[in-house]
Amino acid sequence: MTPSTSTFVLGDEGMYLFNDLPRQLLQERYGFQPSDKWADELRLSSVRFNSGGSGSFVSSSGLVLTNHHVASDTLQKLSSEDRNLIRDGFLARSTEDELKAPDLELNVLIEIIDVTDRINAAVTEKNNPDVSAKQRQGVIASIESESLDATGLRSDVVTLFGGARYHLYRYKKYTDVRLVWAPETAAAFFGGDADNFEYPRYNLDATLMRVYEDGKPAVIKHFLRWSEIPVSDGDLVFVSGHPGRTQRIFTVEALEYLRDKRLPFVLDYLRRKEILFQQYQLEGNEAARRGRDELFGIQNARKAYTGMLAGLQDPQTIATRRGRQHRLMTAASNDPQLKPLVSAWKEIADIQQEKAEQLTRSVSLRSDLFQLAISILLLAKEDQKPNGDRLAEYTDASRDSLLTRLTSPAPLYNDLQRVKLADEIALLLERRGMDDELVQEVLAGRSPREVAAEIVDQSKLADPEVRRQLIDGGINAVLGSDDPAMRLARIIEPEYRRYRAIEDQLSEREKQAYAKIARVITAIEGTGGYPDATFTLRLAFGTVKGYVENATEIQPTTDFAGAYEHAAAHAGQDDFDLPESWMNAKSKVDLSTQLNFVSTADIIGGNSGSPVVNREGKLVGLIFDGNIQSLTSDYLYTDQQARAVSVAGVGIREALRSIYDAESLASELGQ
Amino acid sequence: MTPSTSTFVLGDEGMYLFNDLPRQLLQERYGFQPSDKWADELRLSSVRFNSGGSGSFVSSSGLVLTNHHVASDTLQKLSSEDRNLIRDGFLARSTEDELKAPDLELNVLIEIIDVTDRINAAVTEKNNPDVSAKQRQGVIASIESESLDATGLRSDVVTLFGGARYHLYRYKKYTDVRLVWAPETAAAFFGGDADNFEYPRYNLDATLMRVYEDGKPAVIKHFLRWSEIPVSDGDLVFVSGHPGRTQRIFTVEALEYLRDKRLPFVLDYLRRKEILFQQYQLEGNEAARRGRDELFGIQNARKAYTGMLAGLQDPQTIATRRGRQHRLMTAASNDPQLKPLVSAWKEIADIQQEKAEQLTRSVSLRSDLFQLAISILLLAKEDQKPNGDRLAEYTDASRDSLLTRLTSPAPLYNDLQRVKLADEIALLLERRGMDDELVQEVLAGRSPREVAAEIVDQSKLADPEVRRQLIDGGINAVLGSDDPAMRLARIIEPEYRRYRAIEDQLSEREKQAYAKIARVITAIEGTGGYPDATFTLRLAFGTVKGYVENATEIQPTTDFAGAYEHAAAHAGQDDFDLPESWMNAKSKVDLSTQLNFVSTADIIGGNSGSPVVNREGKLVGLIFDGNIQSLTSDYLYTDQQARAVSVAGVGIREALRSIYDAESLASELGQ
Repeated sequence: MTPSTSTFVLGDEGMYLFNDLPRQLLQERYGFQPSDKWADELRLSSVRFNSGGSGSFVSSSGLVLTNHHVASDTLQKLSSEDRNLIRDGFLARSTEDELKAPDLELNVLIEIIDVTDRINAAVTEKNNPDVSAKQRQGVIASIESESLDATGLRSDVVTLFGGARYHLYRYKKYTDVRLVWAPETAAAFFGGDADNFEYPRYNLDATLMRVYEDGKPAVIKHFLRWSEIPVSDGDLVFVSGHPGRTQRIFTVEALEYLRDKRLPFVLDYLRRKEILFQQYQLEGNEAARRGRDELFGIQNARKAYTGMLAGLQDPQTIATRRGRQHRLMTAASNDPQLKPLVSAWKEIADIQQEKAEQLTRSVSLRSDLFQLAISILLLAKEDQKPNGDRLAEYTDASRDSLLTRLTSPAPLYNDLQRVKLADEIALLLERRGMDDELVQEVLAGRSPREVAAEIVDQSKLADPEVRRQLIDGGINAVLGSDDPAMRLARIIEPEYRRYRAIEDQLSEREKQAYAKIARVITAIEGTGGYPDATFTLRLAFGTVKGYVENATEIQPTTDFAGAYEHAAAHAGQDDFDLPESWMNAKSKVDLSTQLNFVSTADIIGGNSGSPVVNREGKLVGLIFDGNIQSLTSDYLYTDQQARAVSVAGVGIREALRSIYDAESLASELGQ
Repeated sequence: MTPSTSTFVLGDEGMYLFNDLPRQLLQERYGFQPSDKWADELRLSSVRFNSGGSGSFVSSSGLVLTNHHVASDTLQKLSSEDRNLIRDGFLARSTEDELKAPDLELNVLIEIIDVTDRINAAVTEKNNPDVSAKQRQGVIASIESESLDATGLRSDVVTLFGGARYHLYRYKKYTDVRLVWAPETAAAFFGGDADNFEYPRYNLDATLMRVYEDGKPAVIKHFLRWSEIPVSDGDLVFVSGHPGRTQRIFTVEALEYLRDKRLPFVLDYLRRKEILFQQYQLEGNEAARRGRDELFGIQNARKAYTGMLAGLQDPQTIATRRGRQHRLMTAASNDPQLKPLVSAWKEIADIQQEKAEQLTRSVSLRSDLFQLAISILLLAKEDQKPNGDRLAEYTDASRDSLLTRLTSPAPLYNDLQRVKLADEIALLLERRGMDDELVQEVLAGRSPREVAAEIVDQSKLADPEVRRQLIDGGINAVLGSDDPAMRLARIIEPEYRRYRAIEDQLSEREKQAYAKIARVITAIEGTGGYPDATFTLRLAFGTVKGYVENATEIQPTTDFAGAYEHAAAHAGQDDFDLPESWMNAKSKVDLSTQLNFVSTADIIGGNSGSPVVNREGKLVGLIFDGNIQSLTSDYLYTDQQARAVSVAGVGIREALRSIYDAESLASELGQ
């Protein structure tokens, strides 16, 4: 990939690889030349939350800054009936008070190595996707395993440009991660579901954690300095984070599949779960606490997908893409070298049909207990195979991260587990019908609620020690276990594998087809500049910039004064009360301090918690959201109105000082 | 139908026709003989809310008692930003203060005439369902129209036993109905969605209205006396009301269609609307007010259907029915006279397949504006045809009720209308795909939101005067109108008619098949005693009786003391705060007064607001709910745990006196 501008990218579009930064583009447009040191410092200060999110080192003693909503999974797991960290927030007055997260894994990207040639050389079979997938999987497992053995670093092979490039990413891992400070949800998620994806915003969606090594705060060499200066309209800013997934290479037919099948299907599922959790939470205050974080995740996804679907339902969206696709296909058809690649579009279209047929066939019940059980079962079974033949999550290189998850001491509540499992079994029944053999075997004459109650009440798998013993016991212990959750996993496993094989085959065929399309795009439009997001480290850039909405000019920055005004304007509405700490501190806070700002940087889910830095590489903000107009950016970047939303660095420091009485923490930032 | 007991009914099962009361059964089981006077008084005191619900006359001056949740549609329509009757309740201190409902129609059943023979004689075609449906529709329209002309009474032909019997119902109509008293929602719907369909309950789900004639309170000869005595465990009680729909004749295949197709489909739809309304209501306090009643209706339906589906998903439910069906079919196959009828089961099974294919094809957008527009369009077009050839809602006999609805002055809010219409258009797109011709014509290159915004913002149909002028203008005005809502109706009309014709044909075939099945049942099991519910007046009976749940004995009655305790036990939870009026009056209320009670009477949706009377025909309660165990009663009555839930008559009077300071109203009850 040559680092050059492209006719393909629009405005400040782009999520660039750190080994392929848009140097020429930045120079031409902004007169900015990132030095190697600037880029290395930023990369080594950037942190991936393996649970799905981004963060950054912000002190030499291991402080990690991320979003409250990235940390909330940990806050939920550290809470109990008597200690509601989600609602009340948390502040450790000393390192002794810091709370160890039950199952966090943080990754820092140390090195990227291009392994495309080795992988392509190993994949000799071109026409049988089952064989080529096996070959590719085998060589990837070997590369990862060799790298792990050689370096001790977490080693992941990443598929880029839909399969045109493969890079090996090596990460330093931190698994002793402790909670230092979190604000109340009322401040972090001020405005609730109503304000989510809206702007202007006034949210302190920030949390501080600390990584430990050998039981002591880790000594961190590369961390971000904290800018004392708020951002201003027009400032160039950079986002270094881990965008989860984009689909910008998608063909028209792939987008139509999203629009007509996948997104309506996913939204029906999300709304079902949203109502289910709402109903569960009505059972009382403790139920409301137990279900809080999961409901938030569901609502967030529902609102995001609703915006994505609405964008696709605008006929203009796909019409634009259709034009470009037509031009590419025509140009490729007229070029003898590219002509053999044109069939890839048809292949993608065919795959969408097959995906639609698979949509309701998944048997991977979204129940924590079932997921633990089937993972333990598959782990034991995959362990019987050579490393290269295993399902991707069960290779040697993936083992540590998997074990962290499978033996997490995070609590599982029986009442909630019953509700979740019963609904998933009912859904299995709805999708496959009562006469389906698998359904018959799962129900055995009982109702979904009865089955779920029996499994949850009698299974011992909620105890992490029991899970560890099963894992250590290996294949005999796992196959011999009469735990009802393990029994359910054994019943479902054959169909799970059958479905998984179809999924993997479709994915392999799609990979091969998109690799061809990527070659056409590169040949005709020049390099696209950046591959679709893969939950690996990327650099985005943009400017701080307002926008016009319904003939109103939206200013790019907000301040603390605005937060208090917003609360007053929405008095009596749910989720618009600022917490007591804010109300009590109002006279102490410098109300003109910047609190949130927007920029044109190209972000997506997974970027949550990403540091925003200025030309000097100093932290000026913390990505926490996109506005409603940005919800189409999964498949289409625009900078007309779409904006990334950040908490201002100066706002975080001001809140720590004036609201949370955490002067020493505020002083530690950037030091 | 001979009035006798049947092996078919269980316990206190049954929703009996007033011209076919279960006299022998009541005599045998309870030693009770309803006199003709007792039955006539009860029938003539019973009121149907044409909007969907029941009620009763409770004073000689036209007072009508119903549920708050039946009245809430009217409360919503009478409310505005400055007057929130749903939240705050209402009390008219004098008749001058009583508020006229914008579009209520109340019906009192005056007479029932069996017209089966005339209809069967007119339906000469047996093999072509299109022709037989037309013939049946024609003769029904004639009967209704003749009856209306002859008596001036609303005249409806009712299809009973799935088409085995037809009765003509004649009603006196009241259309000047005024609001007298309603409690706050916090008292009427105390415990909210959490407590809905639960028991024990403590709800004052009651409202009083008054019917007027010639601008004065109507003089009512037949009304219910008010019992001074609370009910006791074991008391025999009667429910006189209008159960909306049951499906107890359904075959196994029809229940499987409900379980595997229809109910999951409907629940996806309801959850979609529930989230849509929740999201709309987040926009602010006024949006919350505007969407309140519709959201309640959606949530209520969602909870009811969830319970229905869960019941069907218990394999035992259908296994029981399968056994009975097998016995019936075997017995009929062995009887030369009945043998030709056995094919009806296969016919029903076939129809379910066809129904499944139609499930996503409906184009009747659930938008108020669209419904008004298409109704006005169809009215003008159907008016061009002879009475007997029209769609059922547009016959001469139905005209008055239709006009009441179409010219209602109830407010339509543009913001809410935009949200509703945009979602319905998006759903049309999701179901039919972007390439569908109708979708293309509706969108014309725009997004669903853009189309909805244009229609709602530019249509004048929200104004009832504009609607009246269009209706009065007839076919030319309607076809010439360039109102965008009328344009949308004209675009959709052909497909609406195509779909409607298929629906009507399926319904006709089903009717013929169930009529055969009803004949088999009668021949083999004796008369079933009662036909499935048809939103016409029925008598149910039962005893006041507690039940056991999770090894706990649930007492059949609750009192005001319990209400205050329930509020205290759920402090901090949404919808568990009693209103200020209750908190202020606590010392004045006789806390031992009965508030709610349960009985084994057989009820279903539509029974809401039904009076509960004792052996003397005096009012002792007001049906407002069934418990969660009763949610299967649509297709399966049981009295194991399933119960009907009522507000106690003595509780209503006590609340009026001690909480609402409405002594004169309390004294008027039963007088």
